[in-house]
Amino acid sequence: MNIAVVGYGYWGPNLARNFASLDGVSVKAVCETDPALAGKAKADHPLASVTADFEDILADASIDAVCVATPASSHAKLSTRALSAGKHLFVEKPMAMSSRECDRMAELADKKGLVLMVDHTFVYSGAVRKLAAIAAGGEIGDLYYFDSVRINLGLVQTDINVLWDLAVHDLSILFQVSGEQPVAVSASAVSHISGMPVDTAYMTLHYESSFIAHIHVGWLAPVKIRRTTVAGNRKMAIYDDTESTEKLKIYDSGVDMRATGADIKRLRVEYRSGDIHVPRIDSSEPLSRVTGEFLSAVREGRKPQTDAAAGSRIVRILEAADLSIKQNGERVSVSL
Amino acid sequence: MNIAVVGYGYWGPNLARNFASLDGVSVKAVCETDPALAGKAKADHPLASVTADFEDILADASIDAVCVATPASSHAKLSTRALSAGKHLFVEKPMAMSSRECDRMAELADKKGLVLMVDHTFVYSGAVRKLAAIAAGGEIGDLYYFDSVRINLGLVQTDINVLWDLAVHDLSILFQVSGEQPVAVSASAVSHISGMPVDTAYMTLHYESSFIAHIHVGWLAPVKIRRTTVAGNRKMAIYDDTESTEKLKIYDSGVDMRATGADIKRLRVEYRSGDIHVPRIDSSEPLSRVTGEFLSAVREGRKPQTDAAAGSRIVRILEAADLSIKQNGERVSVSL
Amino acid sequence: MNIAVVGYGYWGPNLARNFASLDGVSVKAVCETDPALAGKAKADHPLASVTADFEDILADASIDAVCVATPASSHAKLSTRALSAGKHLFVEKPMAMSSRECDRMAELADKKGLVLMVDHTFVYSGAVRKLAAIAAGGEIGDLYYFDSVRINLGLVQTDINVLWDLAVHDLSILFQVSGEQPVAVSASAVSHISGMPVDTAYMTLHYESSFIAHIHVGWLAPVKIRRTTVAGNRKMAIYDDTESTEKLKIYDSGVDMRATGADIKRLRVEYRSGDIHVPRIDSSEPLSRVTGEFLSAVREGRKPQTDAAAGSRIVRILEAADLSIKQNGERVSVSL
Amino acid sequence: MNIAVVGYGYWGPNLARNFASLDGVSVKAVCETDPALAGKAKADHPLASVTADFEDILADASIDAVCVATPASSHAKLSTRALSAGKHLFVEKPMAMSSRECDRMAELADKKGLVLMVDHTFVYSGAVRKLAAIAAGGEIGDLYYFDSVRINLGLVQTDINVLWDLAVHDLSILFQVSGEQPVAVSASAVSHISGMPVDTAYMTLHYESSFIAHIHVGWLAPVKIRRTTVAGNRKMAIYDDTESTEKLKIYDSGVDMRATGADIKRLRVEYRSGDIHVPRIDSSEPLSRVTGEFLSAVREGRKPQTDAAAGSRIVRILEAADLSIKQNGERVSVSL
Repeated sequence: MNIAVVGYGYWGPNLARNFASLDGVSVKAVCETDPALAGKAKADHPLASVTADFEDILADASIDAVCVATPASSHAKLSTRALSAGKHLFVEKPMAMSSRECDRMAELADKKGLVLMVDHTFVYSGAVRKLAAIAAGGEIGDLYYFDSVRINLGLVQTDINVLWDLAVHDLSILFQVSGEQPVAVSASAVSHISGMPVDTAYMTLHYESSFIAHIHVGWLAPVKIRRTTVAGNRKMAIYDDTESTEKLKIYDSGVDMRATGADIKRLRVEYRSGDIHVPRIDSSEPLSRVTGEFLSAVREGRKPQTDAAAGSRIVRILEAADLSIKQNGERVSVSL
Repeated sequence: MNIAVVGYGYWGPNLARNFASLDGVSVKAVCETDPALAGKAKADHPLASVTADFEDILADASIDAVCVATPASSHAKLSTRALSAGKHLFVEKPMAMSSRECDRMAELADKKGLVLMVDHTFVYSGAVRKLAAIAAGGEIGDLYYFDSVRINLGLVQTDINVLWDLAVHDLSILFQVSGEQPVAVSASAVSHISGMPVDTAYMTLHYESSFIAHIHVGWLAPVKIRRTTVAGNRKMAIYDDTESTEKLKIYDSGVDMRATGADIKRLRVEYRSGDIHVPRIDSSEPLSRVTGEFLSAVREGRKPQTDAAAGSRIVRILEAADLSIKQNGERVSVSL
Repeated sequence: MNIAVVGYGYWGPNLARNFASLDGVSVKAVCETDPALAGKAKADHPLASVTADFEDILADASIDAVCVATPASSHAKLSTRALSAGKHLFVEKPMAMSSRECDRMAELADKKGLVLMVDHTFVYSGAVRKLAAIAAGGEIGDLYYFDSVRINLGLVQTDINVLWDLAVHDLSILFQVSGEQPVAVSASAVSHISGMPVDTAYMTLHYESSFIAHIHVGWLAPVKIRRTTVAGNRKMAIYDDTESTEKLKIYDSGVDMRATGADIKRLRVEYRSGDIHVPRIDSSEPLSRVTGEFLSAVREGRKPQTDAAAGSRIVRILEAADLSIKQNGERVSVSL
Repeated sequence: MNIAVVGYGYWGPNLARNFASLDGVSVKAVCETDPALAGKAKADHPLASVTADFEDILADASIDAVCVATPASSHAKLSTRALSAGKHLFVEKPMAMSSRECDRMAELADKKGLVLMVDHTFVYSGAVRKLAAIAAGGEIGDLYYFDSVRINLGLVQTDINVLWDLAVHDLSILFQVSGEQPVAVSASAVSHISGMPVDTAYMTLHYESSFIAHIHVGWLAPVKIRRTTVAGNRKMAIYDDTESTEKLKIYDSGVDMRATGADIKRLRVEYRSGDIHVPRIDSSEPLSRVTGEFLSAVREGRKPQTDAAAGSRIVRILEAADLSIKQNGERVSVSL
């Protein structure tokens, strides 16, 4: 498979390196308008042609697939052109800036018989795979809630707000843990820096059941927190991505309610605070599994794990969250 | 000062012990209907009379003050009777279950010239006092946000929900840090245990300015978290009450926005990640300062730091939060 | 059982409280020469007679047992007199200041048919009991080493050095984990405060096998560390007493050596870094088990778990360590 | 400056990359006997000649300097040949396997007027530089002790023991903090894996003053610890290299001794547990400063900060430690 990497800023080099290290994949071209970054691309991949013109990529019949790693606002346009030109598409998260664009991209890929994969990297990490397997195996039981905090100081974006930048990760993890479809979203958010997108946001996902999901993201926090808690009626799990070795902990904890003697008004909680299990996590680079999945999907002519539908349902939630923020935190239905 | 402690369950014994240790204070009586707890009261305070009848307390002219440490639903009724009988009042948090009750209590105390103090213990802790002093001194600058998480496994209440049980602490801390009055509240919450009050709740406080406050409380979490973050345009602070020695950390961190070269669309964050300061915290028991403040207020005939107004404004926010939960998280104005 | 508590300073009140709470035990008397502490004893135990004269205790025929909680230098003398007077003996650690004294105490107890128990509290803690059970069950395998660090700022003693104050705990834990008898001890230590006992010490215990034990104790450390590591050829364990809930962690970790290809000189370590298990620990107060064990031993006329032999073998090691310090860290044989 | 890198195993690639990134430095050649590693060298540095024959390096007159990054046992031989051939020398730690070899290398460099630098990387790290500056500035006061723990699971070497592999780092840090010369060393160590060098070692450095240094290193520990504590009569510092942001903490802690009333036997410690300061640390890669220092020393014809004397005094201590281990932990004088 010959692939072209479009955008060689923050994430593009990592994608290019991982694609290049796959057997049977050549990074044939890099498209980058910034001369300094283009120079870096040339140094890193001497055999690739480096161009500032996306048309060069589209016109090159030897290129099978395009990897779009540009700012989010250009994802839809570049992706649509790549698919139209008959290229398989690997696109950075978020898939696009609107569900309408997502639908168009998905239709185009389907019509042309092309693979469309969205880079939800965390889905391929060892810790999330293990967490998903544990949830799927019933060890956690019926889910109570999903609570995720992803904050730190930095990387303020100017073209997208903090939800589109960070919460997309938490949403992709959420969908690995719970198959239930949220019915509505409410969100509160503020921008503290004049003229910039919101930097601090709280989003709640509501479900038909009593399951609830809450995501807190922020660019203006003094410390880095990357912690996801999943609690059920059997066990509870904490996934802390800042931990070097103990990323995932499974707690045999929960509550049972019991009346104490005659005092029926004052039920007593019977705590169950049992053992904690810290499973070994596959620590190989998630991005190598991400790029491998794309290659396999292209070769096998199948949908990848994080396909257009996966990308699109996250964009739908982010759209609803943006609307909720505009409507003062009102609940906004999530379209299917 | 002769004081009677009403309710000898979870918190009452601590209050009685602290009142008893003050010079010039006698725990004259304990009122407790549960025979086992009454027996414990007698053993702990052999010189106090122990009764199951609140009338005995009210009728005892030698009793100057009443300390109400019963379940929240009885706070208003017992407090009103105590004030009517001419006793100074020390009441556990929350002050009452409605703002209407709070108002009645405040009016009664004013009319009778009696001290009314609400036990917002955290306000008197070394860490919160230090944090408040730092915020008041301008070291944090203009406040960006207040974010507080107070979760753990346990102590599920049956008569009040988790907001009235736990968020009252965060709100009392919030008011120490920011003098600004919230204009509206929105909240989401769920109950996971059939027939029980909500056990997991998220509350957002909205302000006229871009300041935002968010409080996450829960009884069903696998680990204990007690962490409050306060960020401003100059510095940021984290107060972690689970830390034994480093409870409060002040970060000389923040951001400045700067255009990078010609690329005006992509502003670059200039991170300021400077020194961290961990001030020494007065580690004496907050409750000894709480009870001492009540004694001083009675002696000096003045309002205590956590007076009826302090208790009442928190109840108003909790009322609004309960209403928001019923209205699917809609923003509810906070009455003054 | 009627017991007299001798010494009501730092630890005595805890012992008295725990003995008093046992069914069938009365704290009949407290012996304390300091008037302020004697007053505290009277307030805490109104039914006990409080005396400054140890003779009163010995002469009181209704007293069955004596609990010695005085400074270490007086342990032997008071214990010997108590045993001679026919009282069962519960003595604080260290059992005495020399092995000769220990032997005399043990002989006396044996001759008189009295129980002699040494308060090695940690042996009765949930974490150490679990750790000992895991080691005894073979889960750790053949032991590689035992490494224990017990340092913090504080509680500098004037009558004994830091080894006799703190390392006695580590030694009592060590004997729970390994039944092997050390053959020699070497130790290095310094005193940094003029005229005071050594405050920082390192002790190594040597064995016939390749097992090694190392204990680091100190009174002059900026943070509190209480961590014991036990490694074997199958698993490794860390017991961290400063952790509130995750005190004990069992690591399925270790190494296998394997030659890599032809390069026989450079063997490669095959790391085994598997799951971590955090067993639930019984969190009840160890001292209630300590006092309960003494009562049971007296009632059943049997030796307690931490008997004279247990106390004596620790004193023998501390004696050897003191000698090694004097001899510049030379290896000193441990007498049996 | 044209440099040749000899040895392209674990550390060589990092050195080559850092040398290559310096202005005015060319990695002219790489010497590596393993074909796979030689291939990697060629790929990383396409302009460098890659050879298996060290003679090629020596014979190339365009090469100004040699960087020796081979196993420790070959350091002396390769270094001596490089110096004899008139090349400036950059040698990995430990400088050599004996002080005699170190002396010969130093003499040779002096005679030929060549720069000889030993790679004690930690000396150039932001945290150690800050710690050294704080100690030098008198903030810590008169030093009480230096205690360093460097353990983890892994990287068992077959040609050198754990002291020569790991303690060399702690010793290099120690010399940055204290200028005092140790007079003797004692060490205990064991090998738990048949036929392999000692994997767990404890070393004590003794001084004329009451200052003491202790180093604990190990390859068989369940968790990674990299912690150095330096305590003095004014302040205490902890440098924890596993921390991502709070690597260095300065504690305004200590003790004063005070007699309590008449009780002269029981002096009371007056604890001083004040603020903690976490200074911002320069987080740039130490190796870039290491290679930069070598380049500057060559250009300016001066001794580098970690010169032959710095490397040699550490080897002298390791020699003494090895001897102490053989002599059952006896104190061994350190030669000057």
